[in-house]
Amino acid sequence: MLKANDPALHSWIQIAPDSDFQIQNLPFGIFRTQDRDPRVGVAIGEYVLDVYVLTQHGLFDMLDVEDPTVFHRPYLNDFMALGRPIWRQVRDRISELLRNDNPEIRDNRKLMAECLLVRKNVQMLMPVNVPNYTDFYSSIEHATNVGSMFRDPAHALLPNWKHLPVGYHGRASSIIPSGVPIRRPKGQMKPADADAPIFGPTKQLDFELEVAFITGQPTELGSSLTTAEAEEYIFGMVLFNDWSARDIQAWEYVPLGPFLAKNFASSISPWVVTLDALAPFRVPGPVQEPKVLPYLEFSGDHHLDIHLEVTLQSPTLEHEAVISRSNYRHMYWNMNQQLAHHTINGCNIEVGDMYASGTISGSTPDSYGSMLELTWRGTKPLHLPDGSERKFLHDHDIVTMRGYALKNGVRVGFGEVRAEVLPAISI
Amino acid sequence: MLKANDPALHSWIQIAPDSDFQIQNLPFGIFRTQDRDPRVGVAIGEYVLDVYVLTQHGLFDMLDVEDPTVFHRPYLNDFMALGRPIWRQVRDRISELLRNDNPEIRDNRKLMAECLLVRKNVQMLMPVNVPNYTDFYSSIEHATNVGSMFRDPAHALLPNWKHLPVGYHGRASSIIPSGVPIRRPKGQMKPADADAPIFGPTKQLDFELEVAFITGQPTELGSSLTTAEAEEYIFGMVLFNDWSARDIQAWEYVPLGPFLAKNFASSISPWVVTLDALAPFRVPGPVQEPKVLPYLEFSGDHHLDIHLEVTLQSPTLEHEAVISRSNYRHMYWNMNQQLAHHTINGCNIEVGDMYASGTISGSTPDSYGSMLELTWRGTKPLHLPDGSERKFLHDHDIVTMRGYALKNGVRVGFGEVRAEVLPAISI
Repeated sequence: MLKANDPALHSWIQIAPDSDFQIQNLPFGIFRTQDRDPRVGVAIGEYVLDVYVLTQHGLFDMLDVEDPTVFHRPYLNDFMALGRPIWRQVRDRISELLRNDNPEIRDNRKLMAECLLVRKNVQMLMPVNVPNYTDFYSSIEHATNVGSMFRDPAHALLPNWKHLPVGYHGRASSIIPSGVPIRRPKGQMKPADADAPIFGPTKQLDFELEVAFITGQPTELGSSLTTAEAEEYIFGMVLFNDWSARDIQAWEYVPLGPFLAKNFASSISPWVVTLDALAPFRVPGPVQEPKVLPYLEFSGDHHLDIHLEVTLQSPTLEHEAVISRSNYRHMYWNMNQQLAHHTINGCNIEVGDMYASGTISGSTPDSYGSMLELTWRGTKPLHLPDGSERKFLHDHDIVTMRGYALKNGVRVGFGEVRAEVLPAISI
Repeated sequence: MLKANDPALHSWIQIAPDSDFQIQNLPFGIFRTQDRDPRVGVAIGEYVLDVYVLTQHGLFDMLDVEDPTVFHRPYLNDFMALGRPIWRQVRDRISELLRNDNPEIRDNRKLMAECLLVRKNVQMLMPVNVPNYTDFYSSIEHATNVGSMFRDPAHALLPNWKHLPVGYHGRASSIIPSGVPIRRPKGQMKPADADAPIFGPTKQLDFELEVAFITGQPTELGSSLTTAEAEEYIFGMVLFNDWSARDIQAWEYVPLGPFLAKNFASSISPWVVTLDALAPFRVPGPVQEPKVLPYLEFSGDHHLDIHLEVTLQSPTLEHEAVISRSNYRHMYWNMNQQLAHHTINGCNIEVGDMYASGTISGSTPDSYGSMLELTWRGTKPLHLPDGSERKFLHDHDIVTMRGYALKNGVRVGFGEVRAEVLPAISI
């Protein structure tokens, strides 16, 4: 039988070739409708497969899922807690049910109508409950760009950067799913020519193009993961927009790091693409020089070739404008290294923890992953098709990020994360 | 009838005058015994009052607590979510039941035996499930000391420090209750004379004497709290030991703040002392100059006079040695300002969120709240009664922090947070 990632697989569901949700993908999410309370779904073409309904019809009876109500929960956490063998069983079984030669749903009109819902008619919710959120800073181009602008161009990359995957703790409570608008935050900022800080809505609202992975298994406090073990703990990935207020950030971040400049909102795509679905898209990473310490060494390819794109839409634009094209393979540090580093001191991880990559910038200016870099701190405004320009984001701008991997004619995509910027609440 | 904080109140339970848990305190925690699964308790003298048992006997029937099983949960969160009017009703009712003139438990031997347990025989657990943890940096002496050592003595306090309560996000997963030992963490550090970082167990393990408050009510994403509103969201406080590895911290913390140097463990005292119980101990804070921005202005006294003490015990010491005496009133920024600042950008807070003060150092060397400061980065070792000295913590050292407020003969205390340092796991 063909494996779930085989390019030769086809579904009895018609799927457009440019759809992110081919049968080789099968990402997990949480959805609800007017009639159905929150539960686990899998995206397939223009549809959502109601996984809980499958269990109710006995279609998972041969699997080692003892409690099928894990698919009838408001988050994926309880399903993820079952561990990788179960994640694989479930994905393989869903792949089997959707193949063109499998009649179990295909030839059962009533069941089909019950378990397949039109995707645009369902509401996507937060896929996971996030107990802890960490943001890394693992793109060398981004770190170099930011270091040049905020600190010293001659020493843009700090001494520790190539020795460890720099990261910090972010705010879990304000991670929101695609579609929820964000409010322009207010805060303190200090103009270069002022003696004291001023207060008001940020004038330098920005996005950050990131990808985040999610752990589906916990560790005990005091234990560490090797780079080889790390990947077994990772369930999947989402697109991540780490909204940032640059003027607030510049004033507050020394010495303890970003705080209010980031924690007002982070938006994620609602479909969690499994690491299993992304396996065919592994690529080698950069040569790491100087050589890393032994606990950060790894074997095999752990970078992923994921095309990323950011668009801007506004009330005066006819079509959304592409403002950045980047790729997740531009990372210096890979996920295995990030997770091994995160636990080397015994820090425990939990089911549902989210780890963002940091802004993913390529080497050319059109591949930078933030307005800060695209406009070089506002000194080189972006020119949009309607004649307007942007140094940073305006109210009612809509930022959309998309991502997909493509190989041997198979596309495995993330869908999108999209949000509109609403004006600050008046003071 | 006397109010719950009245110094004239007495209980029918005999309580030593130096007990932290007088009838005017009544802190909440979560305990279990061999026979009782985790549930809400209140400390009173040498006893724990099983609050769930009270509800089973109808003693809360006159209160607006619709679901008494909120007291039969592994965390205080569901009780806290009921809001301040209920917190007060419950505290007032427990105060009433324990007064020397109230016969309801006093004269019912069977009920008394069921609801009062000897405190040393119960196991105290984490009192709250912590969705988000923030660490502030609000002691001016501590910030000045650290700035002098790690940066520039001439400009120890950074330009933003007196304009906003500097804070950052810490790790929620590794907050543990008193009594759980901690493991010496391993990590990267860079000796001053080395070209590259080395790897190994930290050589500069430290404690940080802090106090943390806990929010018992949530806000919506996008909304802010004023300094006047902030206090209504705070349920209570605990002692907080923010364990730190100074050599790891020095190497990793620029530019995004502390990460692995802090997230291996933070220890808290298990009894949450309510803000209501602490109300009599309010004192004015320092004059804040320069004047703060309007959103940080406040009226009334919001500092608290809480005596704090740190002791060190080791296998070779006959008695634990007091190594620091400080006071929570040394804070520059108060809780109301911290919470107003935290939400000014719309960041949402959740029930159970924890907010630590940052290390609380006084102005004299014996009041510094960390080994880093007490030994001035190891240059002035502490001399202990057994003839040994300490630059930083040794394996098998036990650090204990205690705190109490005292006024008009009434003592309201926190008990203690204590943990032993275990050796690093061999590599």
